[in-house]
Amino acid sequence: MGYVISLWTPPALAVAGSSDSFPVRRIFCVGRNYAEHQKEMGGDGREQPFFFLKTEFALVPRGGGVHYPAKTSNYHYETELVVALHKGGRRIDAKRANDHVYGYAVGLDMTRRDLQQWGKDHGRPWDFGKNFDESAPCSDLAPASKIGHPAKGGIWLNVNGKPRQKADLSDMIWSVPEQIAYLSEHYTLEPGDVIFTGTPAGVGPVKPGDELLAGIDGVGELKVRIVPAL
Amino acid sequence: MGYVISLWTPPALAVAGSSDSFPVRRIFCVGRNYAEHQKEMGGDGREQPFFFLKTEFALVPRGGGVHYPAKTSNYHYETELVVALHKGGRRIDAKRANDHVYGYAVGLDMTRRDLQQWGKDHGRPWDFGKNFDESAPCSDLAPASKIGHPAKGGIWLNVNGKPRQKADLSDMIWSVPEQIAYLSEHYTLEPGDVIFTGTPAGVGPVKPGDELLAGIDGVGELKVRIVPAL
Repeated sequence: MGYVISLWTPPALAVAGSSDSFPVRRIFCVGRNYAEHQKEMGGDGREQPFFFLKTEFALVPRGGGVHYPAKTSNYHYETELVVALHKGGRRIDAKRANDHVYGYAVGLDMTRRDLQQWGKDHGRPWDFGKNFDESAPCSDLAPASKIGHPAKGGIWLNVNGKPRQKADLSDMIWSVPEQIAYLSEHYTLEPGDVIFTGTPAGVGPVKPGDELLAGIDGVGELKVRIVPAL
Repeated sequence: MGYVISLWTPPALAVAGSSDSFPVRRIFCVGRNYAEHQKEMGGDGREQPFFFLKTEFALVPRGGGVHYPAKTSNYHYETELVVALHKGGRRIDAKRANDHVYGYAVGLDMTRRDLQQWGKDHGRPWDFGKNFDESAPCSDLAPASKIGHPAKGGIWLNVNGKPRQKADLSDMIWSVPEQIAYLSEHYTLEPGDVIFTGTPAGVGPVKPGDELLAGIDGVGELKVRIVPAL
């Protein structure tokens, strides 16, 4: 049996401090998981978070140059803690959810805000605004075996050296174990699934030439440079 | 370099009448691409269609048993023509779009209608309603080299032997070449990308034990049996 087109290798994240890598299967993302970000998006800070997905081909491992995407004039960054699962399951108990986590990374949930807003306003899907090429830059993975399971610590983003986002992981509305438990009620989770766990306040637009440096204390950093559209 | 979890082979569709197969990279889906379906969903039949995505792991190649999914009490079928691209590109001219098509199949865009409706009503993503495990059963691919590029022909679905959907491919609002052109304005398309091209009127709920037989004249048939939830 042959393939009628070339077969690809699944996109993967490097494991920090090793020559190993972690192949990524699906990307789940949490929306509105920090109260202050809910407010800047027009909410009251007491909404229930929710999930959407990105294709794993949206990954930009280790960041670097990211093209300004097509069909937007309002391209936004959203800095997030990323969780990588090495163990799947259904109806996972939040108390045991950390056992399913291989490690953590720093990610950017890049967003075509105008296209997302159009979906939101019209009761239509958000995919064109969220799930597009190069929309998921992500740092190397820090294994939980080395750093533990961070439930607090600074999460921040500078654009061209100026602070734009700054918060603490403990500000999350749904904790990482709660997210895994909730997701596993709706999906059979699998090794390779990752979760972008939501962004704090301070989101905003970027343009070609901008340099983004995102970081999470004890997890890592991610550098992205916005380059002109293809 | 090693992988810290087992590496998988990308999901693939068999090519009818051969031992070859077509690996699937991303699944794009068109919503509201038949006027009569727009009307049954509460629209006026003159809306612009739109896109969303499913992960390729949602595929159920050749159909067969499909589990009633978690967290829904209104699980719907939607029969669709599926288009598989063997050539990618950006800003593809609709006049040349058929050159990018490897072949066609019969697919079911299975939907947790209640979760989709919640997203729609709340300006939230549709992903829990559309992009979930086993939500994309799909027949073998009929190569365009054998069947050409079908722009008309019957598309139909029977549930337990009773007709539920029946329309013609020529009823599509956006033709297949128009869909490829439009998508390629928003994404860099790649070999392996497939498109579920929208469903005609007649969608409805199914339950464990139901037998679905979907078909498209000149393309193929797809049989699915709904089995109890996991």
